[in-house]
This record gives sequence, C-alpha cells and structure tokens, in this order.
Amino acid sequence: MDDRWIPARVGDPVSEVDTPALILDLDRFEANLKRLMNAVKGHIASVRPHAKSHKCVEIARRQIAAGAIGICCQKTSEAEPFLAGGIADVLITNEVIGDRKTLRLARLAAQYPAAKVGVCVDDLLGVAQLAHACEQAHATLDVYIELDVGHNRAGVTEVGAVVALGHAVASHSRLSLRGLQAYFGNAQHRRSVAERRQAITAASAAAQSARNALVAAGLRCDVITGAGTGTFIFEAMSGVYTEIQPGSYAMMDIDYAKNEQELTWPTFEQSLLILTTVMSRRHDALGDRATLDAGLKSFSTDSGPALPAFAGWQVRGVSDEHTVLERKGEGPDLRLGDKPLLIPGHIDPTVNLHDWIVAVRGDRVEGVWSIGARGAIF
Amino acid sequence: MDDRWIPARVGDPVSEVDTPALILDLDRFEANLKRLMNAVKGHIASVRPHAKSHKCVEIARRQIAAGAIGICCQKTSEAEPFLAGGIADVLITNEVIGDRKTLRLARLAAQYPAAKVGVCVDDLLGVAQLAHACEQAHATLDVYIELDVGHNRAGVTEVGAVVALGHAVASHSRLSLRGLQAYFGNAQHRRSVAERRQAITAASAAAQSARNALVAAGLRCDVITGAGTGTFIFEAMSGVYTEIQPGSYAMMDIDYAKNEQELTWPTFEQSLLILTTVMSRRHDALGDRATLDAGLKSFSTDSGPALPAFAGWQVRGVSDEHTVLERKGEGPDLRLGDKPLLIPGHIDPTVNLHDWIVAVRGDRVEGVWSIGARGAIF
Repeated sequence: MDDRWIPARVGDPVSEVDTPALILDLDRFEANLKRLMNAVKGHIASVRPHAKSHKCVEIARRQIAAGAIGICCQKTSEAEPFLAGGIADVLITNEVIGDRKTLRLARLAAQYPAAKVGVCVDDLLGVAQLAHACEQAHATLDVYIELDVGHNRAGVTEVGAVVALGHAVASHSRLSLRGLQAYFGNAQHRRSVAERRQAITAASAAAQSARNALVAAGLRCDVITGAGTGTFIFEAMSGVYTEIQPGSYAMMDIDYAKNEQELTWPTFEQSLLILTTVMSRRHDALGDRATLDAGLKSFSTDSGPALPAFAGWQVRGVSDEHTVLERKGEGPDLRLGDKPLLIPGHIDPTVNLHDWIVAVRGDRVEGVWSIGARGAIF
Repeated sequence: MDDRWIPARVGDPVSEVDTPALILDLDRFEANLKRLMNAVKGHIASVRPHAKSHKCVEIARRQIAAGAIGICCQKTSEAEPFLAGGIADVLITNEVIGDRKTLRLARLAAQYPAAKVGVCVDDLLGVAQLAHACEQAHATLDVYIELDVGHNRAGVTEVGAVVALGHAVASHSRLSLRGLQAYFGNAQHRRSVAERRQAITAASAAAQSARNALVAAGLRCDVITGAGTGTFIFEAMSGVYTEIQPGSYAMMDIDYAKNEQELTWPTFEQSLLILTTVMSRRHDALGDRATLDAGLKSFSTDSGPALPAFAGWQVRGVSDEHTVLERKGEGPDLRLGDKPLLIPGHIDPTVNLHDWIVAVRGDRVEGVWSIGARGAIF
C-alpha cells in the first residue's frame, strides 16, 4: 500500500490541491512535446528525452507516444521504475563503476530481456566490470563510449582512447558497442545563440573524428547521442549526431528561459509550477510580506530560488520550509490561505524533492502522477 | 514491502556501502548528544531537539534516551512518522493554515490521544481554523503563539497581538495555550559570539515582555521555546527560555562549524558524512580531476557544496549527479572506484535527499535507519 500523502485526487479543482505541490499544465506540456518533435522532424533520426528531468513514467509514456524512441536516465536505480513501467529502451548516460553497481545493472538488464538497456564507459576498468557483471547475470548491455566534447567532466578526449575502449567493448560478447555519448552540457547555458552554435559545431567535429576513427578500426559507431534543451537544434542539424537527449523542454525552468533564441525555433512554455500556501502575512516597517509554505525542501536553489509566477512580489528569503515574498509593485493581494504559484529555478533537482506531479487541465486535476524515480541516486 | 534500494546491511564493512550514502559516525553522534545535555544541565528545564534536521525516528529515540523531552518538526506530515514511531511529544514549530491542513493535523492528534501535539499560531484566522478542526476531529492541541524576536519571518511582534491571540486560544476548550515560540533562526549564523549573544539577549527581553503581558491578562505562558545549534547556550542561560530546540548539533555541517565559539562551550563533531564513488578520473592540461557519483541530488548547495573530508582536493563543479574534484595539493590519490567522503554544507536539506542513514561504528555498519520524514513537505 502506498501511504504517501497524496496532494490531490482526479477531478479536484486546483484551488483544493494540497501544498506544496508540483502542478503540470497539460495543455502547455503537450504543446511542448509537439513543438520539439516538429522542430527536428526530418533532421535527426531519434529523439530520446532525458528522464532525469521529470523522473516520471507517465511523462515518459507521453514522450514516446509523441514520437520519442525511449528515454535517458542517469543511474541504475533511476532506470528501474522506467523499465518496470514498460519503457523498453533506456540509456544510462553515465558511467557505472564498482562490482556491486555493475551487477545490479546487469541483473536489471537480464530482468527485461526484450528491452534495450545502455550505459556509458570512459575507462577500460569500467568495461571489464560491466563485462564481468553481464557474464554473472547472463545479461547483455548496449555500450556507448563517452566522448568529452567540451563539458570537462567524465569521458575521454583522445581518439586513441576512444578506439581502445571500442576494441575492449567489442571483445566482450555480452557488450554491444553502439556508438558515442557526446554531451556538451554546460554549452546549453551559454546565453547567446552564437556561443551555443560555436560550442556544438566544435562538439560535432570532435564526434565526427571519433566516429571516423572507430569505423577505420573496423568498429561500429551507429549512434552519436547527446544534446539538451539549450542546444538540441544545433545537434539535430549537425549531420553528425543521430540522436538528441533534451529533457527540460517538456516542463522548463527559469534558467533555460534566459537563453537567447532565434525566431524560427520552438518556444517551450513553462508547464511546471509550484503551488504554495500563504501561511503568514506581515505588513510593517520592514515592508509588506507573505510567507509561503515552500522552501529548500520544495525547490532547489542552485540556479536561484523559485520566483513568483505573478507581478508585484519578489523573493526576500528562502529557508528550509519557507519562502518570504515582499511586495515591490502592482500585483495581486496575497491573503492568508491564498495559493500562489512559483516558477522553479532548476527543474531536475526540484522535481527530485516531490513524490507527485499534479497534472491539471484548466482548473481541474486530470492526473496525479507518481515521480517514481524520485531520489533514485544509486 | 519496502522496495527502496538499501545501501548497506548491518555488519557490512563501510567500504562495501553503496553510494551515494549518508554515513553517521555513531561514536561522534553519541558524544554530541551527551555534550549538549551536559552543557545545559541545571540551566534549562527542557531540551526538545529539532527533528527537521535528521527526519529519522531512530535518532529521535536516541535524543530522548539522552534526556530530551520530545522533538520539534515543521509540518504535519513530518510529525506523522515520529508519532507512529512512538515519540509522544511533538511540537510543530510552524503555522498550519487551511481547512484541509488543520483537519489533517487535528485527526493526527486524535489518533494519538496519549501524545502531546503542539502547533504555532500568529493570526486569529489560524486559531479559528485549528479550533474548528479540533471540534470536527474530537482532538486537542497544544498551542504556542509565535513571537518574532528578530528572525523577520512568521510571528507577531506586538505585545497586544500576543495577548489577543492568547485570549483567542484560551477561548477554545480544545486548544491549550502553552506559551511562546520565540525562535531567532538567522542569529545562529552570525559568526561572532558577541553578535549572537546580543541577538539572543534582545530576543529574551522581547519574550519576557510577551510573557509578562500574557500573565497580566490572566493567561498561561508556561513555556518559552526556541533556539538552535548556533545560539542555544544563550537561550539556555537567559533565565527566560524554558526549552531549547537545537537540531544540527547531533550531526553538524560546514555552515555551523564556521561559527566562532567560546572555549567552555561544547564542540560538536561532524558526525554525518556523504560516501561517494569515484566514477571517472582525468589528468590532463586542465588538471588532475576525480568525478564523484554524488551531486545536487545527494546534497544541497544553498550553503555551498559538500566539501572533501580530506586534504588536497577542491570542488571544481557540481551538477545533478556529479561532483568534480580537482587536486590542489598534498592529499590522497583518488582512483577509479575509490569511495571518498564529503562533508555536507547544510544538513537539513541534504538529509531530505536520502532514504537511509547508514550508522557506523569504526569500519562496520551498525544500523541502517530509515529517514521516515524525508520529503514530508505537507
């Protein structure tokens, strides 16, 4: 039995949803899914949305219904609820290191023999651990060599290292070499179009060189996958990438909304908001303030705090369970018990703080979706 | 059945604990509990630790065994696992607003008639909602008037408002007026002893005035409760506060460790750490880097990122599932698969990201404790 506190039931008016709660505007969300597919149609073979942003099987199903081939995630424990929920193509865009972790991954893949399960490598030790785990579990895994195309985190940079990893993967019958993971994450947050285009042009050239080297060595490289919401247009048009991995486009946040865009590109709307309750009101020499019942435990602040989705109020302070708003201009009156909406600053770690997404159409709750991969850090 | 991924079993060596995991050093933790009680013995009637910091019934039990009278928490949903776990005195140090929320609280109190359940008020509407909910649920609640003694968030500041709230509470037979919640949260993070002493001296004077006014109006004010790890010495010695609410002292974090201390005060040791795995290694023109498998989804960054618990390495970057360390001096070599420890920057929202605390003694796991109030935001 699921005894978690559920903030709403289907059919409830939004005004009765318990707070703090994530509210997904279904009209905007569905439009975002369509906009993405329309923007890349004819340019790229595959769209594989990154589920680390939403962590929700119901959303993954809708992305696939809209034309995606499967999803990405970041950890084995994150892959589990998606595979259990019937998502048959899951790529872990991350290295998995250590015998316990690789065995868990291999057993998961063995549990879903009809599904495709992929993982990244950037070290020969990692390849050996995956191969050993697959032997133990009688599993097979798709393997992608992570190429660092500018993100400067995991991955290899030298073509020689790519080829060495390719030979190592190809030498194990239970590992299937699929191609390259070539994700330039921080390029997505460079604000000007020119900076982002330049970054992905360079990334594409590096990925092309790595693919050429693999093919010249007699190895397979059918897939080059990467990209996110901030840059996917460039990867999709590159002629090099075969697959894109945008995640935030479906729900959006303050950070991505700051990027400069070209007019012909799709504009993704903010579909996810945080419903709160005014739990204290003050009006004194320090100003006109409303304290909301949502703080660090309801949204992440690594890209700045969540901000009011309405005019006239600014964030004065955030603590574990509170956000204090201060009136700074014309805007709604906020009375005790009112339920103002906030816009999340960074969507992935914000969704990770909640158990439920309350999906609404107009002012009615249409679905209450479990965030099944919430907190899946292993 | 609990199908969450459990990072360890009792008896495991720490080296085999799955990562990322919260590791509680039991020797340090137990010493912290004793140090707090010894520091305030003879000075203050009651210690009521704030459980929003650990969210864990097993820890609350140990705090009570060490002499605490009960615990605090911040939300009704946070109180539930503690009451269910046998903690018989729980104070919600927060306002609860809205018919749905007050009814949930009243029903919870009715479910545990032998327990004391308290809540704060700062508005007559809140008092009326609590009274109505208690009538509906046949419940009784202890009520504390929140006095703003400098924190500038919720609470009232005027003595007249305190007395008006006191009369309102006293007029309802199902509400029991207990006294004042007088918490000066941000004073705890003022770094110098002098600043913190000055803040709590002023807070104590304000609380004394409010109590005098309540008593002069023929109302009860048996309890003045407040304080946290950064200031509790002052509240305990004030002669005004009857109860203190420190939370972080049990596990500690980087932020509290920055406070200037006097030599005679207890020194709380860092007992909670984050175990990670090195999942990628790089050594090139950009430096000597180790990428760990823990990021924004394993620790909060609102007081800065988690930092290495060892010399020679600095944090270069943090993303959702990764922390990149860079070598900056003499320190341990970090090889692929090694399991370095990090110190959390801010403990409350960090604990909120995990399902388990792995309690260790020496290099063995002695307990794996559920963080039962993790994510309890309602």
